[in-house]
Amino acid sequence: MSRTLWKRFSSTITTRPGPPKAHHHAPLPDSSFPKGYLATGVHCGIKKNAQVLDLGIILSTRPASAAACFTRNAFQAAPVVVSQEVLQKNGGKARAIVVNSGCANAVTGKQGLDDAWAMVKTTDTLLDPQPDAGRNETLVMSTGVIGQTLPISKIIEGIKSQASKLGTGFAAWERAARAFMTTDTFPKLRSRVFTIKGREYRMAGIDKGAGMIHPDMGPPSGTGQLHATLLGCIVTDAAVSPRSLQNALAYAVDRSFNSISVDGDMSTNDTIIVLANGAAVEGTKAEEIDEERHPDAYEAFKQELTSFAIDLAKLVVRDGEGATKFVTVTVEGAPTYSDAHKIASRISTSALVKTALYGEDANWGRILAATGSVPLSSPLDPKRVSVSFIPSDGSASLPVLVNGEPEKVDEVRAKQILSAEDFEMRVQLGLGSESAQYYTCDLSYEYVRINGDYRS
Amino acid sequence: MSRTLWKRFSSTITTRPGPPKAHHHAPLPDSSFPKGYLATGVHCGIKKNAQVLDLGIILSTRPASAAACFTRNAFQAAPVVVSQEVLQKNGGKARAIVVNSGCANAVTGKQGLDDAWAMVKTTDTLLDPQPDAGRNETLVMSTGVIGQTLPISKIIEGIKSQASKLGTGFAAWERAARAFMTTDTFPKLRSRVFTIKGREYRMAGIDKGAGMIHPDMGPPSGTGQLHATLLGCIVTDAAVSPRSLQNALAYAVDRSFNSISVDGDMSTNDTIIVLANGAAVEGTKAEEIDEERHPDAYEAFKQELTSFAIDLAKLVVRDGEGATKFVTVTVEGAPTYSDAHKIASRISTSALVKTALYGEDANWGRILAATGSVPLSSPLDPKRVSVSFIPSDGSASLPVLVNGEPEKVDEVRAKQILSAEDFEMRVQLGLGSESAQYYTCDLSYEYVRINGDYRS
Repeated sequence: MSRTLWKRFSSTITTRPGPPKAHHHAPLPDSSFPKGYLATGVHCGIKKNAQVLDLGIILSTRPASAAACFTRNAFQAAPVVVSQEVLQKNGGKARAIVVNSGCANAVTGKQGLDDAWAMVKTTDTLLDPQPDAGRNETLVMSTGVIGQTLPISKIIEGIKSQASKLGTGFAAWERAARAFMTTDTFPKLRSRVFTIKGREYRMAGIDKGAGMIHPDMGPPSGTGQLHATLLGCIVTDAAVSPRSLQNALAYAVDRSFNSISVDGDMSTNDTIIVLANGAAVEGTKAEEIDEERHPDAYEAFKQELTSFAIDLAKLVVRDGEGATKFVTVTVEGAPTYSDAHKIASRISTSALVKTALYGEDANWGRILAATGSVPLSSPLDPKRVSVSFIPSDGSASLPVLVNGEPEKVDEVRAKQILSAEDFEMRVQLGLGSESAQYYTCDLSYEYVRINGDYRS
Repeated sequence: MSRTLWKRFSSTITTRPGPPKAHHHAPLPDSSFPKGYLATGVHCGIKKNAQVLDLGIILSTRPASAAACFTRNAFQAAPVVVSQEVLQKNGGKARAIVVNSGCANAVTGKQGLDDAWAMVKTTDTLLDPQPDAGRNETLVMSTGVIGQTLPISKIIEGIKSQASKLGTGFAAWERAARAFMTTDTFPKLRSRVFTIKGREYRMAGIDKGAGMIHPDMGPPSGTGQLHATLLGCIVTDAAVSPRSLQNALAYAVDRSFNSISVDGDMSTNDTIIVLANGAAVEGTKAEEIDEERHPDAYEAFKQELTSFAIDLAKLVVRDGEGATKFVTVTVEGAPTYSDAHKIASRISTSALVKTALYGEDANWGRILAATGSVPLSSPLDPKRVSVSFIPSDGSASLPVLVNGEPEKVDEVRAKQILSAEDFEMRVQLGLGSESAQYYTCDLSYEYVRINGDYRS
């Protein structure tokens, strides 16, 4: 159909905008940031607008344990290949993270690998002006357009220029967080102070998202992937052994970044990096936390890291493209965690469920259909399945299906719950004791506009 | 946010309507319909509008082989449970199909099963006024709202009243096809004449779709499912053994109805039924086609059934909710058919790919990201992957990625191809010789409106 003909037939739709999101970013106390790290962000020229930051650096002033999870997508962007290699060669140690936004350095062949290595090696010189040729201590991340090579000389200049700008505290970290942003509407930065066995530690984290958000990340391995949209880093001044840091991260990522969905599309540069430099216990006789030698401390650290990662992951959903709702999907009573996770993922990606969320419609039939479409380790018994909507204000929940029988739903009450920005949908399978949570948003006109509007 | 506040912030979007679709339904020659079948459709009162048909019957005037595929969703609507039982008890024989639209008879407990049996038994009396109590020959399908029980007395009256209205030829079949419709914008009816080993046969088929379309159907088994949106039937006057009819149908369904996606949501009543009554060879000594005794004839029949099922399945995608595009996704060079099918399915359900189709944007990065997110039987090699867009007018195709290297894309040419209603996206994996095709549509504002608009 010609454009003219479309215009003749076209109609207008009134969209409902999402809630304002700027309040999800606010100053944090300088004292809540981990010791022994410097951070900054600059505009180096990848993005056209000189006011917009596009290159960030975070570095540890002392050696640190490092761990990472990378997307399982088969197309692997150059920075993912290179970061995995650095991590493997260096035995789970690293001191710096360099990130650029505006260009993903994906599907860029040999040139892309050379460019990613150039970013690593240039950042290494900030740690030591004369680094070992064979030893690299920087991990690299890129996000943005794919199929284009990096303006590498601008980036190298940008990295060199940052040496004098690195700083501590909120202002420095906020610059780093802004350098991660692409279509994000606010910088995503969090910090916290926590205690394990009476000792105080700190943690800071940055991430970015918006679209192509349905990560599935695992520890470094043969399988990699290609086009970045979920990037994140968490650094702490706790001392943790590289092996235990990797295991804690894998656990945390599964329950946080691997449990969010904006549009169900897995990106190809998804990367989460963690550094633990032990600066909080510098000069003391405290040993590195290790799961075999200190199982209690390890468990406490793992839970702290997981809860922090969930906070960061939720920010990505809240800022999802076109999102007007933030919905927690809880699946309980599953035979295994994997079963619960699979159903929660399926509900969270269902176009019919997500458009009903946008329409503020308590459409339990769509939730049930999504639930039933997932093959499980033991068969579902429809007569044991219950579904309810849980409001975010602490008031009574609304059961819509109880043991397979539809409830008579109070539509006014349903509307009341679903018109809030935040609420929860809970599915009880009645098959076991495992549960999982997913975080998702609605599918709005605005999502279609952002991703489907004519480029012309 | 309150409704008032939304209004203050709301903006308007100009939607592009889909192409008109009525021309996909046109009269068919009476002589192309299979011998030995009667069909009709009536308004029995499930739907409010008395002009809209909601009850259809198709019956064979002689015994017929029967086969069916049902959705693998774990929630099983009453008609699915009952049809499976009839088919099993009756050793792969059946003579009638009864269908209602407007109410899916799903999540309706014991009452729902009683109602579905009542539809079967009442239709059985059209075949034989005094049927065997223990022998049922009718298969039943329902589609529409879930969680509500059928107005069964109206339906029983409706079935009884049809005895006098059953007829042959296009007019009768068209009434039956209209009785299948819910949000479909045109009745979906096809017929064809075909020849096997010099003998002429006929085939007719009806289906319905619109939303909740991403079927995954298998032969009758322990796992069933719940809320109908893809329903179809194909009847032929060829003679085929029940076993071979079931095997041919499973093959055909995998390549047709299980290879389409409107919104990626699997429904719970999805059912495809096939009858083969042998009326074309009545009075001759022709044997039933069977894969062991007549492998060549069986193969010819299987291919005929598959190509006919693909025609019917495509109609569902073309009439998908909000669809403005009909896109064939071809994945070639896969190590196995299952690998090719999985990737084609993933591309066909990607929200980012589907919004790009609506935006007429040749966004190969999104196709690649979707391709790479599927775990395969042997690992993808990005350097062997090629992607191209194939226009529907026979003109030259447009390669956008060749052996992992991005091509310089002529945007004017890309726009030309993607502005057509029909085109193909082809992904070559370079790993093997297996291929699969999927049929999908775009994700438009109209889809969000249909499924997300406030019910108030």
